[in-house]
Amino acid sequence: MDVYISGAGMTHFGKSPDSLEELMAEAARLALKDARIRRVDAIYLGVMNVEEFVGDSNFATLLADVLDLTGTPSTRVETASSTGAGVFATAFYAVASGHMKNVLVLAGEKMTHLPTAKTTRILSEVIDRSERRYGTTMPALAAMIAQKYAKDFHLSPQKLEDILARVAMKNHFNGSFNPRAQFQKRIEKGDYLKSHMVSYPLRLYDCAPISDGAAAMVVTSQPTSIRVSGIGHATDTSAVCHRSSLTSFNSTREAAEKAYAMAKVDPSDIQFAEVHDAFTPFEIIGTEDLGFFSPGEGWRAVEEGSTQLRGRLPINPSGGLKARGHPVGASGLAQLVEIVWQLRGEAGPERQLEDVEIGLAQSIGGLGNNNFVTVLERTDRKRIAKEGWRPSYHTKGTGPREGKTPSLPEGTGTLETFTVLYSTPEGFLSPLALGLIKTKGGERVMACNPNYRSPNVLRIDQWVSLKKKEGLYVFEKFTLWNRMGRWLKHLPRSFS
Amino acid sequence: MDVYISGAGMTHFGKSPDSLEELMAEAARLALKDARIRRVDAIYLGVMNVEEFVGDSNFATLLADVLDLTGTPSTRVETASSTGAGVFATAFYAVASGHMKNVLVLAGEKMTHLPTAKTTRILSEVIDRSERRYGTTMPALAAMIAQKYAKDFHLSPQKLEDILARVAMKNHFNGSFNPRAQFQKRIEKGDYLKSHMVSYPLRLYDCAPISDGAAAMVVTSQPTSIRVSGIGHATDTSAVCHRSSLTSFNSTREAAEKAYAMAKVDPSDIQFAEVHDAFTPFEIIGTEDLGFFSPGEGWRAVEEGSTQLRGRLPINPSGGLKARGHPVGASGLAQLVEIVWQLRGEAGPERQLEDVEIGLAQSIGGLGNNNFVTVLERTDRKRIAKEGWRPSYHTKGTGPREGKTPSLPEGTGTLETFTVLYSTPEGFLSPLALGLIKTKGGERVMACNPNYRSPNVLRIDQWVSLKKKEGLYVFEKFTLWNRMGRWLKHLPRSFS
Repeated sequence: MDVYISGAGMTHFGKSPDSLEELMAEAARLALKDARIRRVDAIYLGVMNVEEFVGDSNFATLLADVLDLTGTPSTRVETASSTGAGVFATAFYAVASGHMKNVLVLAGEKMTHLPTAKTTRILSEVIDRSERRYGTTMPALAAMIAQKYAKDFHLSPQKLEDILARVAMKNHFNGSFNPRAQFQKRIEKGDYLKSHMVSYPLRLYDCAPISDGAAAMVVTSQPTSIRVSGIGHATDTSAVCHRSSLTSFNSTREAAEKAYAMAKVDPSDIQFAEVHDAFTPFEIIGTEDLGFFSPGEGWRAVEEGSTQLRGRLPINPSGGLKARGHPVGASGLAQLVEIVWQLRGEAGPERQLEDVEIGLAQSIGGLGNNNFVTVLERTDRKRIAKEGWRPSYHTKGTGPREGKTPSLPEGTGTLETFTVLYSTPEGFLSPLALGLIKTKGGERVMACNPNYRSPNVLRIDQWVSLKKKEGLYVFEKFTLWNRMGRWLKHLPRSFS
Repeated sequence: MDVYISGAGMTHFGKSPDSLEELMAEAARLALKDARIRRVDAIYLGVMNVEEFVGDSNFATLLADVLDLTGTPSTRVETASSTGAGVFATAFYAVASGHMKNVLVLAGEKMTHLPTAKTTRILSEVIDRSERRYGTTMPALAAMIAQKYAKDFHLSPQKLEDILARVAMKNHFNGSFNPRAQFQKRIEKGDYLKSHMVSYPLRLYDCAPISDGAAAMVVTSQPTSIRVSGIGHATDTSAVCHRSSLTSFNSTREAAEKAYAMAKVDPSDIQFAEVHDAFTPFEIIGTEDLGFFSPGEGWRAVEEGSTQLRGRLPINPSGGLKARGHPVGASGLAQLVEIVWQLRGEAGPERQLEDVEIGLAQSIGGLGNNNFVTVLERTDRKRIAKEGWRPSYHTKGTGPREGKTPSLPEGTGTLETFTVLYSTPEGFLSPLALGLIKTKGGERVMACNPNYRSPNVLRIDQWVSLKKKEGLYVFEKFTLWNRMGRWLKHLPRSFS
């Protein structure tokens, strides 16, 4: 059974005095009003971590009650930071089953009321336990991925900085036309450079903000002007260490392949997209993983301006997570709300794209391991069925999970990528150097060293030694001195 | 599209040294082996509060990875303590949509590693905030419902005690034949009476235990011996205060009505059931809400032995939540695993029911406000389509939500029901008298009084005064002394 969208709405994103249930109720009322209905067959509600952000449980029930829809079936769905897309997909299947006609989809998060270090700690719980205990945060992992991308595709630190700044400036520019965006102020390169370093090379302006907000939709089996034509979903290894590629998210590629096949389109059909830019490098990688640009070419598209609001393929016309804000559970659904508004021609004169009939949203859960791709199109779009698309290569995680390999490496390796993290979570010293080490045995491990307090003393691909201290790997670069020491230690006893 | 079950499995329930992901993986492997498949189109995973019990987030991704199903779409679903049933319903719609052939459904919880007061606090978060702040716990609310049931249906305290003991003994008896049950030991009335009072009149043996455990199923569009014939889901008011009936759960009644209609059966067709007995009185109320017995008659069925393992309508042949254990997120799915085993004739010689072709599971989320009813039947059952069933009365919540009524009552009222809570959550003194007061204006409010340390000093329907202290209502019974005081206060000044 085909599935359509009859209503869409969202609150202003940013710092709000309202409670989470008030925010979600506001978004719900907007969507219900838009769909011109009052009752629904079910509510599907997405929130990533209501337990720790708000201290509540049984939230699906509360929302039904707050909305005066007491009695209506209400279910909570969660897929980490892609929760908004996950709850939409779940509602899609419920309607597609023919058992429900109209379903209310809700997604929201309330985050700004807590101290930043606590919020960082809560957000870090999406990271695999084996990596989280190093003090790794989401920005730290994203920073390591950005460094690896720059290395693999030959971007100098200056070039990388310039490209990332362009992504941030573009999304702030777009956000300046979005009355619901958290930031409606354009930024210049100077502002970007002045923003503090969160985790080298990512600055504050490379990271989506901490936000409150909610989005809602009504999904229906009754034909409307907007059809849900493709949904794809895939996971990846829990630990980043176990990926075979650090510069591409296999979960996006697999989700995209499924969504394109279901929608019978290929990447060249897509006219605009909302891409999960929780960190600026993720937007670039996202546009490659979605097949818009070849691997390693996404940054060129940014430089050339192709992804700008009036470019060939506008990316994040809403301002993206970067400028619209990122209430983690809500973002995946807010992206889809933007697609609906653009397809209906309701995005407002300044950011409305011309003659768009098909758009795509990509949402990332966790560190790129629970991702969704959703394709929406105008029902009146002339459809030329295509065979879909296959990613140019698949990069399945290959490394073994911790616990399955009792013999862990110790000794030497190369520094595959690294960051120096300045905004550490509760309980960790700052700054903190974190690195991914490729060991001689070919394994990849996370390691740290709190003594390297500047990124300038480290270099990708340099040799490092690896030792275990208090259950954590600590890496140390080979200097002439410790090479000498190592060499001397291995001399026959008679020499010493 | 019809939906079938091809695999079912569960771990032993109880105190386990294994991590939550290990427990869930064990259950998953058993279900996949039973279904004779290795790969699935999606994973739907239910866990109620992984954030606070275990300190993890992004758990759906972790499980896909732990199961060597990296890449497979994986979504977490939550509906409080009915999560196991909620995740099953979600998977049902995904398969019914025709977009997925085989889906792995997982549900689990890990609870025993935390101190009891902390677990009680976490579990209390499912209670509406307006009631939770009084120190109310799930057993306290269940106890107030039990007292009201006894009052309305004329059971003396001794009779109520006897009936609740019978439910506990029956379920422990059934559990003694279940090798996966937490308690496999029969109990006598003496054991029941010796167990400590948790919240008057509920003793420890009236409450399901704190448990670790997981259950799993494979749901498929390929015909097998077991068909999912009916699913119903409904919510009720978040606050118990706002219900028009305290002795019946409208969410069960509405869910049952939907499930019977979908399965084209009525209550008389059901041959056995798993009923959510988190508290012994809930089993009795459940059998009434499901239409097995008239309102107020469920306790008689217990007394007459109709719900025993070899009775006319066996309830909880598995031992129920009471004896099998209650890892909150898992119980709803474990109930369905028992139904599958019974229908297949795989429940083992001692607890296998004879010639059963259709069974039902009822699961309660929160304090009876996010409930599911699921009907499973043998595919070879001779089906005589019936019109379904309508509950004899609907008892929609009528009271207004807090915040909508700025003028709150103060003054006098009657004590509609009460409990004295001995096992209070973190941060509350014990014992604590809690009551629901029907005010003169017809509203119902929660109120407390830490000075009443024994249930013997209170009586249902007695007049009480109501005052607000530090934002909480405190009730006080009228004694001759304070009636006199009140009377004196209202005398003309010249008298005093």
